[in-house]
This record gives sequence, structure tokens and C-alpha cells, in this order.
Amino acid sequence: MPATLSHLECSACGEHLNANELQNLCPVCGSPLLARYDLAKVKASITPQQIEDRPRMGIWRWQELLPVSDPQYMITLGEGDTPLLHMPRLGQRVGLDHLYIKDEGVNPTGSFKARGMAAGVSRGWELGVKAFVTPTAGNAGGAMAAYAAHAGLQAHVFMPKDAPMTNQIETQIYGAQLILVEGLINDAGKAAAAEGEKNGWFEMTTLKEPYRIEGKKTMGLELAIHFKENGQWKLPDVILYPTGGGVGLIGMWKAFDEMEQLGWIGSERPRLVVVQSDGCAPIVKAYQQGALASEIWQNARTIASGLRIPAVRGDRLILRALRETNGTAIAVSDDEILEAQWLVARLGGVFAAPEGAACYAAVIKLVESGWIQADEKVLIYNTGSGMKYNEILPKPVI
Amino acid sequence: MPATLSHLECSACGEHLNANELQNLCPVCGSPLLARYDLAKVKASITPQQIEDRPRMGIWRWQELLPVSDPQYMITLGEGDTPLLHMPRLGQRVGLDHLYIKDEGVNPTGSFKARGMAAGVSRGWELGVKAFVTPTAGNAGGAMAAYAAHAGLQAHVFMPKDAPMTNQIETQIYGAQLILVEGLINDAGKAAAAEGEKNGWFEMTTLKEPYRIEGKKTMGLELAIHFKENGQWKLPDVILYPTGGGVGLIGMWKAFDEMEQLGWIGSERPRLVVVQSDGCAPIVKAYQQGALASEIWQNARTIASGLRIPAVRGDRLILRALRETNGTAIAVSDDEILEAQWLVARLGGVFAAPEGAACYAAVIKLVESGWIQADEKVLIYNTGSGMKYNEILPKPVI
Repeated sequence: MPATLSHLECSACGEHLNANELQNLCPVCGSPLLARYDLAKVKASITPQQIEDRPRMGIWRWQELLPVSDPQYMITLGEGDTPLLHMPRLGQRVGLDHLYIKDEGVNPTGSFKARGMAAGVSRGWELGVKAFVTPTAGNAGGAMAAYAAHAGLQAHVFMPKDAPMTNQIETQIYGAQLILVEGLINDAGKAAAAEGEKNGWFEMTTLKEPYRIEGKKTMGLELAIHFKENGQWKLPDVILYPTGGGVGLIGMWKAFDEMEQLGWIGSERPRLVVVQSDGCAPIVKAYQQGALASEIWQNARTIASGLRIPAVRGDRLILRALRETNGTAIAVSDDEILEAQWLVARLGGVFAAPEGAACYAAVIKLVESGWIQADEKVLIYNTGSGMKYNEILPKPVI
Repeated sequence: MPATLSHLECSACGEHLNANELQNLCPVCGSPLLARYDLAKVKASITPQQIEDRPRMGIWRWQELLPVSDPQYMITLGEGDTPLLHMPRLGQRVGLDHLYIKDEGVNPTGSFKARGMAAGVSRGWELGVKAFVTPTAGNAGGAMAAYAAHAGLQAHVFMPKDAPMTNQIETQIYGAQLILVEGLINDAGKAAAAEGEKNGWFEMTTLKEPYRIEGKKTMGLELAIHFKENGQWKLPDVILYPTGGGVGLIGMWKAFDEMEQLGWIGSERPRLVVVQSDGCAPIVKAYQQGALASEIWQNARTIASGLRIPAVRGDRLILRALRETNGTAIAVSDDEILEAQWLVARLGGVFAAPEGAACYAAVIKLVESGWIQADEKVLIYNTGSGMKYNEILPKPVI
């Protein structure tokens, strides 16, 4: 394939940067950088049908829209190509005929974080990185450790000390260094940044490097195939996304724009819905106040560890995506999350992560309020497997 | 699609039975029944290329070779279409250039059991079953519960009381009845049979119903696409399979025969390798003695709960498959399994179930002994995700 990545562009000030050098934040204004491609070259080199006809190859089905150009650096553990599951019983309970779950729990390492790390670690490897560092609420650390292990690279993971035990165990079994931190992911972030700088580890912190989002955007690309109609790629009407760092949502929004520029989809967009826990809802608060940015959430607390992200680096982009797609933002309680997790399992056969279950709790509310209509195609992202969160569930009672 | 299932045939006495009625064991001799298809009709209705070109649709990509004829009963949670992962670092450690892992851990419910239950529960549903019962070492129970939940059917699961906690929790969250039993899976089997008969629950016990194996055989079908060469479906040279009940292995062997009869592959076969724990190795013992059947293993004990199957109903078929493919059978210790699990994670980026890890321990031995040659294409089945077995691993040490 031809190299299609052209440059990096600051999401705030528009500064252009060389994509063939390692970059973190914009050196001018400190905002996240986004990867830009030569879309004319992409369009000339591949068609939607050719993409569909490729065998299962992880996120690399979409390699013309990803940052790695040399196939030897495209690490795959089978991430992506996750199933779209029609949920008739779960939908009927709230009066929806077209309720779907995109099940990211069947990714390697059990969460959507695998997509981002496949792209980020691969591109870092291609650019010469030998050691990576990241803070994490849990799943991103396990995923980074797995991809680094496959390539024989070092991984250093800073995690809140009360992160799920499965995340701690997987990080260590992949051979990464696990550092447990007092506090939350933002505290882990400070420690990771300091140690990274001291030791020369490349920092993979959410949106502080520009390529994890590229891997996550494949969640949006795949939808266009799933919802194909009469030979034309299409998207659903509503997408509910559990939003911690929110990069999955920003990535999808970016993917839709790229596909429209390529002429692969039209200009219609799904209404994007940010779902958070009422114990940590900085985006919901900012959205309700009509703000352009969010504030740090104090005393963040929720069983959905992936939603326990008090400071959101991508807040401006997330809020813009909500406004531009006529979306919304909604918070649900931990009790509602646990009830929804139970319903998704019993009526759908999917053991969802609490973050994914939160989206079904949000569907219930948005159908009740009339924001979602009965005939709409509604998609829930289940971002991970519930098996990684066993400890929040009651032990079996016989 | 046309109905292609023609009848059921006893694997021992050859008796033919009606496939449109519910069947368990052969009523004449008590042996397992195998599904037979009108292969001429299959050949006329689909080509290998058409199968490859289908979008991801779980095991139903292979619906012409599966027992369900009405699409409304084809339950899918995204099982199957698992990735084939090339493992350069893991292979190099033992001098192999072509070592692969087929990662079944990314199936829904985290194990290959999803394939069998997708077929078995779907076919039972099509034939009118309202309630299923099964004994299980753990993973099959969770899988049956998930598929039954999706379809709105009852599930009753009998499990050893020391089965992994994740298996217990998932079975309950899917809404199944979980019954914990003193002893091992054969004890659970007696209780399941008795309660099933009393209550009219259809028994899904391994090889006591003929369709779970049909779902598992898709593991063999998929390999032919993975190893395609010059436009022709092919198979690897050696397949290592962790063998508890052994249905996955029998299923693959059946799949290869069906594909050969269809003209989709040639007559070459991979050498099949049964891998067991030395704490429960009835097939290895029988193979070494040149016996046609195995004996019940006393005091079965291993951390690989899926290999803790002391009485193997499919023993004659497994031993025949080993002989016919010039395969072998090998036992490894729990220490070797844990060491291999660590290696597969650190050198491969895959957190394998102990059963899958056992196969890498076996590769090490078979390369040392010269049974596996350096230039061969060697495939390990990782039958499940290591995340389901966290409790056997040490807690992180920081």
C-alpha cells in the first residue's frame, strides 16, 4: 500500500506537524494532535468493496486510513471486526425493534482499548520507540502491555491501586511494569509523565499521542459496513457511547468525516450520545451548561472504572461532536448500571462491562423521554467484557 | 438456503436416525450420534469463495454444513471467525518460524464452548426445546446460559463447586439456574441426567446430543481459509488441541472429512496432537497403551479446569483420529502449564487459558524430541481466555 498519512494537525490551533517524527501534544498550544491523510491517494488505492472483501486482519482492514505504512510493524492480536448483535428481546423491553450492541468485549484483552493500542504501539514501534508508558483506569494498561509484549517492547503502566484485579494481573502477565498509584487516573497521569520524561519512555496517555485515536476510529468505520443498505454504506440513527476519556467517540466522529470526504458515506450523521456515571459526569455537566469545555470532577466515584475519568483532555472535541450531530449527554447511577448489566445478560446473552451496561440504562431513559423514537436504529457500544469486573458482582448464591 | 442435514448416524454401530426429532445417544448401542449432510446439495448450493466472501456472521458462515435450516433460529453472539495469530517470538524461542495460535479466547463468553452452544442451543430451539440442562467443568455452562438467554429459553447448569468463580458468576448473570455439585464433572453429569429426566429438560451433555460438535467443527473449517495457498484451501502440518472432552478435536477431524468429500481440500491431514494435564490424562494413557478406548482417571487434579475430565465419552473417536492422522498424545504438568502461560503472554501478547498454554508446553517437548520439525506449520488452539482463571494466578506483587 502507498503511505497515505500526510501530517499531524493541532485540533485547536491548526498547526501542522511532521508525522514522521514522534509527537505528543501540539508544541504551540498544548492541544491534542490529529492524524491527517492524503484522502485522494486513499480513494485511488482502495474501494469500499475491496475493504469488505479482505479477510479478518484486525484493524488493519482499514490500513489505508491508519498511520502505519510498513506491514511488518502492523501488530495484530485479532482486535476489531467485532460483531454487531441484534438484540430483539432487549429492544422489545423498551419498545425498540432495532436495538444493536457492538460487542467490543470480544477484542483481545477484553475491551475496545485493544484497537487504540494496536495502532499506537505499532506506529510507535515503526518510529523507533523501545519503551512505552501510560496511565490507565485499567483496560488501556492491559492492552498496551499485550501489544508491547507481542513486539518485544517495554511497557510501564501506572494504575490506581483500586483498579480491577483482572487489569492488574493481565498487565503483569504480559511482562509490563505495573506501578500502583494512590488516587485516580489523573494522579497516575502525573506520575507516568514524570517517570516517562526521566526515563525516556514514550508517553501513550490518552490524546497526548495522536495514534491511539486512529485505532479507535475503526469502531466508526466498521459501522458503515454493518448498516449497509442497497449496496451503500450507511450508519445507524443513534449511537450511545460510554464516555470516560471519550476518544472512542471522537474517533468515530473523525471516521465519519473521513468516509464522507472519500465519498464512501453521505452527509447524514448518527446522533451521538455521551453516557457517564452520575458519580463522574464532567461532560454531561458541561453539555447541560452549554459550555465549550469541561471542568475537573471532584470526588469521582463509580463502579464503572472506565468512566472514572475526572479530567477529560478531549472535552472540547467531544462537546463539539455532540453539538454537530444533535446528540446529547446523559448520566446514570451505579444502581441503574447494575440493573442494566443484569438485563443485558438475561435478555441479550451479553455479559457487558458496567460501562457498556450504562448505555442500556441510558436507552431506557431516552426512550421514556421521547428522545429516541421506536423505529430508530439504535446502537450501544459495549466497550468491554463484564468478566473483567467480576469483583463488583455478588458471589453466586445457591 | 436448502435444508442439507439428512440424518443422524451412530458413530459406533452405524444406525441411522431421524434428525428432525430430538435425539441424545444411539438407542441401539448407547454411543454418540453424528450429523450427516446431503453433501451433493451443499456442493451445488455454495462455493468456497462464496463462503469466504460472507460478512462476519458467527459460525453461520458455514450454515450449509450446520444443523439449523431456518435462519430465525440461528442464534449468534459473534462466536467464531476467531483470529489466526502468527507468533514469531514465541516460535523463535523453540526454533519454529511458523507457530500460530488460533485464539478462541475472543469468543463470546471467552471460550470455544460458544461455538458448540451456538449450534446446539439453536438446533434445540428449532426442534422445540424450552429448557436445557448440562454438566460442565465451567465454560460450557456459561456459554449455554448465554445462548439460552438470548433466545429466551431456560438453562440449568451443574458445575463442580470448585469450578472457577468467573464461570459461576457468568452462569448466574445470564439467568441460568446454577447447581454446584460435590466432586467432578462426571458427578455433575449424573445429577444433570437425573434432574433433566425428572423435569423434562433437554440434556446437552458432551456428545450426549449430536449438535454441539457441529458448532465446534467450525474451528476446523476456518483453518482451511486461514492456511489458503495459491487460491486453494489448505491445512497446517500439526494441530495441538487441549483435550478434556475432546469434542473440538473430533469436530475438526469430521470437518476435514466433509471438506475433502466436497472437494474443498485434498486428502492430506494435519497430525493431530492431544494435550492433557498429567493430573488427568486418560487419553494419553490409552494412546500409549495402544488401546481403543480410555479408562476413567482416578483422583483427577489440575489447575486447567477444562482438562479435569476423568471419563471421556468420545474416547474411541479421539483415539481413532490420532491413529488416522499419525498424531500423538502428550501430558504436561501444572508447573509446565503455568510457565507456558507466562511465556505465551510475554512473548506472544496472548493471555491464554491454562488449557491453551498446555499446548505450548507440549510444543516445547515435541520440538525437543524431534516429533515437530523446524519448518512445519504448527497450530496451537488456545481454547479460552486466561482472564477467566485469574484466581489460579498470584496476585500482583509491586
